Amino acid sequence: MSLLYAIELFGVAVFAMAGAIEAARNRFDLFGVLVLAFVSALGGGTLRDLLLDRSPLSWIADTRLAYVALGSGFAMFLLAKFVRIPFRALLYADAVGLAAFTVSGTLIAMNQSMPGLVAVLMGMASGIFGGVIRDIMANEIPLIFRRDVYATASLSGALWIYWSQMFGLNDTASLTSGFILVVLVRFAAIRWQLSLPGF
Amino acid sequence: MSLLYAIELFGVAVFAMAGAIEAARNRFDLFGVLVLAFVSALGGGTLRDLLLDRSPLSWIADTRLAYVALGSGFAMFLLAKFVRIPFRALLYADAVGLAAFTVSGTLIAMNQSMPGLVAVLMGMASGIFGGVIRDIMANEIPLIFRRDVYATASLSGALWIYWSQMFGLNDTASLTSGFILVVLVRFAAIRWQLSLPGF
Amino acid sequence: MSLLYAIELFGVAVFAMAGAIEAARNRFDLFGVLVLAFVSALGGGTLRDLLLDRSPLSWIADTRLAYVALGSGFAMFLLAKFVRIPFRALLYADAVGLAAFTVSGTLIAMNQSMPGLVAVLMGMASGIFGGVIRDIMANEIPLIFRRDVYATASLSGALWIYWSQMFGLNDTASLTSGFILVVLVRFAAIRWQLSLPGF
Repeated sequence: MSLLYAIELFGVAVFAMAGAIEAARNRFDLFGVLVLAFVSALGGGTLRDLLLDRSPLSWIADTRLAYVALGSGFAMFLLAKFVRIPFRALLYADAVGLAAFTVSGTLIAMNQSMPGLVAVLMGMASGIFGGVIRDIMANEIPLIFRRDVYATASLSGALWIYWSQMFGLNDTASLTSGFILVVLVRFAAIRWQLSLPGF
Repeated sequence: MSLLYAIELFGVAVFAMAGAIEAARNRFDLFGVLVLAFVSALGGGTLRDLLLDRSPLSWIADTRLAYVALGSGFAMFLLAKFVRIPFRALLYADAVGLAAFTVSGTLIAMNQSMPGLVAVLMGMASGIFGGVIRDIMANEIPLIFRRDVYATASLSGALWIYWSQMFGLNDTASLTSGFILVVLVRFAAIRWQLSLPGF
Repeated sequence: MSLLYAIELFGVAVFAMAGAIEAARNRFDLFGVLVLAFVSALGGGTLRDLLLDRSPLSWIADTRLAYVALGSGFAMFLLAKFVRIPFRALLYADAVGLAAFTVSGTLIAMNQSMPGLVAVLMGMASGIFGGVIRDIMANEIPLIFRRDVYATASLSGALWIYWSQMFGLNDTASLTSGFILVVLVRFAAIRWQLSLPGF
């Protein structure tokens, strides 16, 4: 199993859990939880595959991704029945998923010889879109628009993957360091409430 | 005209009416009504076709579907000018559309030799997505997330189509019974306010 | 540079600014502004390309479109830091973008030999969708559904492009007059609060 695939699978699992947490907070029923887990976990990758005209979609070509999304969402549903999941848990799970999809999305676009800007945007779209669609479906203002460093974390990871690949770093070192970079930036932003200039 | 096509056309008509009812309830103008009717009626099939990489889209290949959507939406607009349409009518029309698209979506995916999980998910996506996008555009929490059996109805129909086809039932019997199954489950859920375990 | 391309580029710029204005009104941070600018500016064209199965997407094939979207959004972010942008400015910028994408979308679909209904719908989808997704992401009821002539303006332009092309008008005359038509209808609707029959 390649590192790229492992990261994708890991991102699916944590985003599914983040979706289930948000669904639980909104008191959705079991299927609402599974739908939100599925859409959060696979929405970003689906958008990336549609935009890059990759066919079949990753979770159609490899249904393991879909099973992991549903399984993780169901596990979180059971957990949330017995334990109150704090909002902070949603933020951290979302950060880890953001990191995973940002780095995998950027590398996948580069493997298709996309220009730098497109590769970076695909990394960001893969990382961000699942959470955006999750928040829209739960009728909340998406996390990305709240005033803390969010898209910036994704952007930094996508740029890092792009440059490190350009300079010939191998995939393992590039993906690992990019993943850690996004997680650190985002965790720091949550912990110290960093924010970009706004209005 | 094949039964599959007839069911698809029927689903388009009732989902267009459901969209127009919701638009009327939100006091949209004539074009808002037509847009919501169109998106509700053809959104699920469009998503299915995009995800399965079917090209051209069903309503581009066969514009009759688009005309039926617009015509049904317009008819409901006229009706709603003179008669107060109760919320219950929206629920029942939505249930019938859900049934139609669930069974047609599942069969279409199976005809493309998709694995079982993907066929079931495509049936559910076709059935559910039109209503979800309708509710999001009207800025309401999607019906699917309210605490009554909704996705479960779609799931039961998709599973039924999948298994009955696997066991060699012919299309007519399989589609008809699957359609009736979804309608019955959903009507019962509305009538007796059945709900799944939640929080 | 063809007129069609110039109009597309112009539409990208004004829709990006409209997106940035709405983001500023909602006090998004810098990246929220850029994301909303990007999605508003390129969302309509992306939907059109996905629905017509055009690959690669216009802004992937030609990254200048993406740079223009981001640059225009950033310029408006700087401006909005120092000047209070009135809601009316959003309405007018939106109207110009609507006109640009309606005419370019219709002509692009006709160049792919789509039937008349599909060409008109593609023009409308290209023109309307960017603004709809912008409003949904900012958690507002889309402009299109407010009770003033909106989709009608887009429809009139799309029909005009279709008929004028059918009757052999050259692209320059057809695009220019169609663009002016949409802008005039929409400006008139804003100025005198014209509305269609509703409820």
